[in-house]
Amino acid sequence: MRLPVQLVAHCNFAMRQKPIAKVVIFGTGLIGGSFALALRRANAVGEVVGFGRSSATLEQARQLGIIDRIGDDLATELGNADLVLLATPVGQMPELMARIKPHLGVHTRVTDGGSTKGDVVAAAYANLGDKVAQFIPAHPIAGGELSGAAAAKADLYIGKKVVLTPVLENSIESVDYIRSAWQSCGAVVSELSAQQHDEVFAAVSHLPHLLSFALVHDLAQRDNRDQLLSFAASGFRDFTRIAASSPEMWRDICLANRDALLDELGSYMQELATIQTALSDCDADKLQEIFSLARKVRGNWTQQ
Amino acid sequence: MRLPVQLVAHCNFAMRQKPIAKVVIFGTGLIGGSFALALRRANAVGEVVGFGRSSATLEQARQLGIIDRIGDDLATELGNADLVLLATPVGQMPELMARIKPHLGVHTRVTDGGSTKGDVVAAAYANLGDKVAQFIPAHPIAGGELSGAAAAKADLYIGKKVVLTPVLENSIESVDYIRSAWQSCGAVVSELSAQQHDEVFAAVSHLPHLLSFALVHDLAQRDNRDQLLSFAASGFRDFTRIAASSPEMWRDICLANRDALLDELGSYMQELATIQTALSDCDADKLQEIFSLARKVRGNWTQQ
Repeated sequence: MRLPVQLVAHCNFAMRQKPIAKVVIFGTGLIGGSFALALRRANAVGEVVGFGRSSATLEQARQLGIIDRIGDDLATELGNADLVLLATPVGQMPELMARIKPHLGVHTRVTDGGSTKGDVVAAAYANLGDKVAQFIPAHPIAGGELSGAAAAKADLYIGKKVVLTPVLENSIESVDYIRSAWQSCGAVVSELSAQQHDEVFAAVSHLPHLLSFALVHDLAQRDNRDQLLSFAASGFRDFTRIAASSPEMWRDICLANRDALLDELGSYMQELATIQTALSDCDADKLQEIFSLARKVRGNWTQQ
Repeated sequence: MRLPVQLVAHCNFAMRQKPIAKVVIFGTGLIGGSFALALRRANAVGEVVGFGRSSATLEQARQLGIIDRIGDDLATELGNADLVLLATPVGQMPELMARIKPHLGVHTRVTDGGSTKGDVVAAAYANLGDKVAQFIPAHPIAGGELSGAAAAKADLYIGKKVVLTPVLENSIESVDYIRSAWQSCGAVVSELSAQQHDEVFAAVSHLPHLLSFALVHDLAQRDNRDQLLSFAASGFRDFTRIAASSPEMWRDICLANRDALLDELGSYMQELATIQTALSDCDADKLQEIFSLARKVRGNWTQQ
């Protein structure tokens, strides 16, 4: 008999650790809200307290059963918290880390949901100081165009990847604890260094978003853009779906992962120059070679 | 009361023209096979005869009820045909046109399903000669990764666009006849010049395919490609879906529409250079401006 992923994960968690008595979540939108709901679904959490910049979002999260209470005082809530999730935009994390640092209990573990890791790790060293060992950085690979508390759902992370990028100061137990928490949400957890993480995601996520934004922007500036778009079909739809993502979030991701993204962009522009030459030269063999390898690799990937 | 698209279309067709007594289809795969099935569904066709290079495909098409008969002799089948559809790869059309020309009846109308139009029109002038007036070029915007007779379906064209690119020699009646045939399949028919068509599709279809192939090819050459792909998620999946398309078909499309595609590729590389500069300069405002316009235009398009 095969148990559902989330149940296996929860058993795994429960056998190794006590369930989490108290979680504090900063940012109760899609990422933070879904984390809370997933922990509840797995019976892995006692109390969930929410903090955030928007009282309307917090109230909505409370009404939706994502959080039990809206936090008021950091000192009161953080001292006895088992797990703190920073699920705010990455740009807010340095200041947030500085604010929470004085109030973290000795047993409190902190993690985050940021899409870039080099900058978050640097912020942790700068702002958590001697408590950096309590911070285990993570990137849940989930989300999409939707956002906000109303989009949060208990099954968002089932079968999704979560990448931990531990710092040297983290104890094995701390990393295990955060891994188990994410596993109890149904996620498949792996580990990379922060630098590896940022290089990988520059290639398979950040660059594709940039390229998709660039295509739509290129067409958007034309006088005949309405005519062009009226003939766009399903290929265009899928290629540009990610161009409907949040401009602010992707601006921040691009800047946070600038070096790796510039490397990827340079490599891609080289690739385009090669194709441009093949096309100019009517080099049918070269074009077919490029397209065939791409199709083969893409086809194999789909089958995973 | 609102009639289903295909019924309205068929009524329209039936009122204006007699249903088509005999259709001859060259290439009974997805495009040609679906055309035949759609005409049958609309009760708009009498007999359907199929020709093709693969006798296995033709036999399959016959067994699936796409065609009534497998054609044997061109002279016998074409002289009394009302409508001939060339649904072969574009590369085969020049030779095919030369072969059918001597046998076309005076009332036979010929159309095609090619994705590029400048080259098809040139082939028609070169190979149909004084019968070019009987050829009304068309591009049905439908298809995808699937191909072959087994993928053909009667509703493929419902609500899909078909672009006619008439030549000067076409009579109004001939263009109306082909328009009505496609409308009876449920398609939304519009007209462009062949050059306009090729420019539009270079921008919204051919370039996105090229860019998607290029991204996967760029990653495919890396030593760590398996690691990279193991972290790729839904954004990558959608962006690269079209990289699973037929390499041969897209090689031919790129070469057939080389000039317009090189223009689009050049424009896109300029766009990437602008983004590269903004990223190098940490120009957050510029990045957000580009992403925001792209998101707005993409969002409006989705709502159409």
